[in-house]
Amino acid sequence: MIRVAVDAMGGDFAPQEVIKGVLLANKEYPIDIILVGDERIIKQELEKQAKTSSIERIFIVHAEEEIKMDDIPSIAARRKRNSSMHVGMKLVRNGEANAFFSAGNTGAMMAVSKLILRTIEGVDRPAIGAVFPNIKSSTIILDVGANVDCKPIHFLQFAIMGKAYARYILKLENPRIGLLSIGEEDVKGNELTKSVFTLLKNSNNFNFIGNVEAKEIFKGVADVIVCDGFTGNIALKSSEAAAGYIGTLLKEELKRTFISKIGALLAKGAFDRVKKRTDYTEYGGAPLLGVDGIVIIGHGSSNANAVKNGIRVSYELALNKVNTHIAEDILNSLENHKQNISLWESIKDKVKNMASQIQK
Amino acid sequence: MIRVAVDAMGGDFAPQEVIKGVLLANKEYPIDIILVGDERIIKQELEKQAKTSSIERIFIVHAEEEIKMDDIPSIAARRKRNSSMHVGMKLVRNGEANAFFSAGNTGAMMAVSKLILRTIEGVDRPAIGAVFPNIKSSTIILDVGANVDCKPIHFLQFAIMGKAYARYILKLENPRIGLLSIGEEDVKGNELTKSVFTLLKNSNNFNFIGNVEAKEIFKGVADVIVCDGFTGNIALKSSEAAAGYIGTLLKEELKRTFISKIGALLAKGAFDRVKKRTDYTEYGGAPLLGVDGIVIIGHGSSNANAVKNGIRVSYELALNKVNTHIAEDILNSLENHKQNISLWESIKDKVKNMASQIQK
Repeated sequence: MIRVAVDAMGGDFAPQEVIKGVLLANKEYPIDIILVGDERIIKQELEKQAKTSSIERIFIVHAEEEIKMDDIPSIAARRKRNSSMHVGMKLVRNGEANAFFSAGNTGAMMAVSKLILRTIEGVDRPAIGAVFPNIKSSTIILDVGANVDCKPIHFLQFAIMGKAYARYILKLENPRIGLLSIGEEDVKGNELTKSVFTLLKNSNNFNFIGNVEAKEIFKGVADVIVCDGFTGNIALKSSEAAAGYIGTLLKEELKRTFISKIGALLAKGAFDRVKKRTDYTEYGGAPLLGVDGIVIIGHGSSNANAVKNGIRVSYELALNKVNTHIAEDILNSLENHKQNISLWESIKDKVKNMASQIQK
Repeated sequence: MIRVAVDAMGGDFAPQEVIKGVLLANKEYPIDIILVGDERIIKQELEKQAKTSSIERIFIVHAEEEIKMDDIPSIAARRKRNSSMHVGMKLVRNGEANAFFSAGNTGAMMAVSKLILRTIEGVDRPAIGAVFPNIKSSTIILDVGANVDCKPIHFLQFAIMGKAYARYILKLENPRIGLLSIGEEDVKGNELTKSVFTLLKNSNNFNFIGNVEAKEIFKGVADVIVCDGFTGNIALKSSEAAAGYIGTLLKEELKRTFISKIGALLAKGAFDRVKKRTDYTEYGGAPLLGVDGIVIIGHGSSNANAVKNGIRVSYELALNKVNTHIAEDILNSLENHKQNISLWESIKDKVKNMASQIQK
């Protein structure tokens, strides 16, 4: 049976919402769940919510310490060696759990995972993947924040990792990989993306479809979109902000007249369905791809539903052995990969020259 | 009287929608409008729409050539010297018009304006400013696409230009200037924004409030947000895409049941008001700040309403002498500016060192 370790102490609403989510997941999914954190607090909360702390397929592993949301990631990773994050990741490293989910400090999740799990061979930088809904199905965008400054070769690794996710989780035979840029034409972009474009186009590890503009994100034109973590984070947060803004305006305007209030009541079902289709709590969490172990990062403000879905995502990644596939794909492509690196080394000056010559 | 030159040949729906917009603007604003383009076609269209081609306060200036939407900007700028864009900009340069509006090829607008109008003294790079609506009022974000690769000093100029826009168009005494980044804390960002942060913080030309996250864009936490053109474009297009996606989902879900269809009918007024509050055609166009002349770039797909509002924005910028204020602010700050450049030169290695040492 798949075993998912869950950080009982992680997130703005831990441990209450985490444990509520775990109880929901316990009913829905055929998995073992290991709650990691302060045993006394966990038992207390289980007693409160479920009237008993001994529940079938729910286990507790004690952790002395806890990383707070405002801890400095690098310091917490080094000093709080007995935190629930450290203990959870060790369970994964030692094969006692197949995946680890936490809604805690994102920076600490990255730092602790690098420390304890390290990266898959051939991966230089783990990346956070965010699943964006679109008209047809969904698109995984990576990186959305783990690496703010990237080199072209990192994008190539992101593409391979995104491809594995799209194949084994989104169940697509030949996922379309796009590069986030500011124009569709091959020559559009900044110096970095122009170099990346050349590299990805010359790689035969995946189905590269070229540049994808931000305005195309929700149209389903690509299954995987790669970008540096700064750009991806801006795209993710701008989208969430715009959606939130539209929601606020709608509420405001629907309240303005009696007629529109009635309209809003009648249309409530439709509004709820839109909300569900765009609700991040339905997506549950963002996989940290490229570390040697399945790690899912939940939103800091995860409620029980988000935790439940985060556990579901952890379960799906473990069940479909996504990390094994990433490792295989990276290894299979290592020959290409080496060729690509030498290709890149041999053409980079030429590309940079071209880029600086092209009138923008 | 303020005279606004309008590119009759620019945009996906030129000349029909342009001339329709000009006729609307002619009724609403106390300005002269100079239609620039093929005289025969313009007269024909005026005859068709207004039954006469001699309308009070509307003038025609003939231009032999026309820059197409898919022309390569740098080539069109150099070769089509008699295009409506070239002629319109020359009217501005020679003082025969106070501003120029075009919904044509954005890249060509930038290239032609640099060629004919050049930049305001002290400005290295013109920037496209996009006005984002927010809960309280609006925020100008620049650059959103003119400069895909920027140096820290360009951000400083963007801040000064944005400040002039916010003071004289948004009518704010002491505009809050923010830097678009991926975390609110001072140390968050990529290598570029960390350097920019230090530079802006050490400048005394404006009220710098620090980093602004993309999720805050629509909350009105800043009046001016500066970023490089690549990042700004991603933020702008992601926001538009998300808003469009929510709209599509809403339409889809509201059609799903009979009850929600009735609800949608009753709530139509509210939907229309939300649409109006987020409709880019209401904003009319994006100022190209920093060129020595007022230039407004309209959306390629501008309809008559967008053209009318683009003319209004041109009129407001001319009336409030925004470019004169930018020139003054840049000059006034030139001393600071020089100090800033030397400050930057003196600290940049230190900053870069610090940046690379900070654990991300």
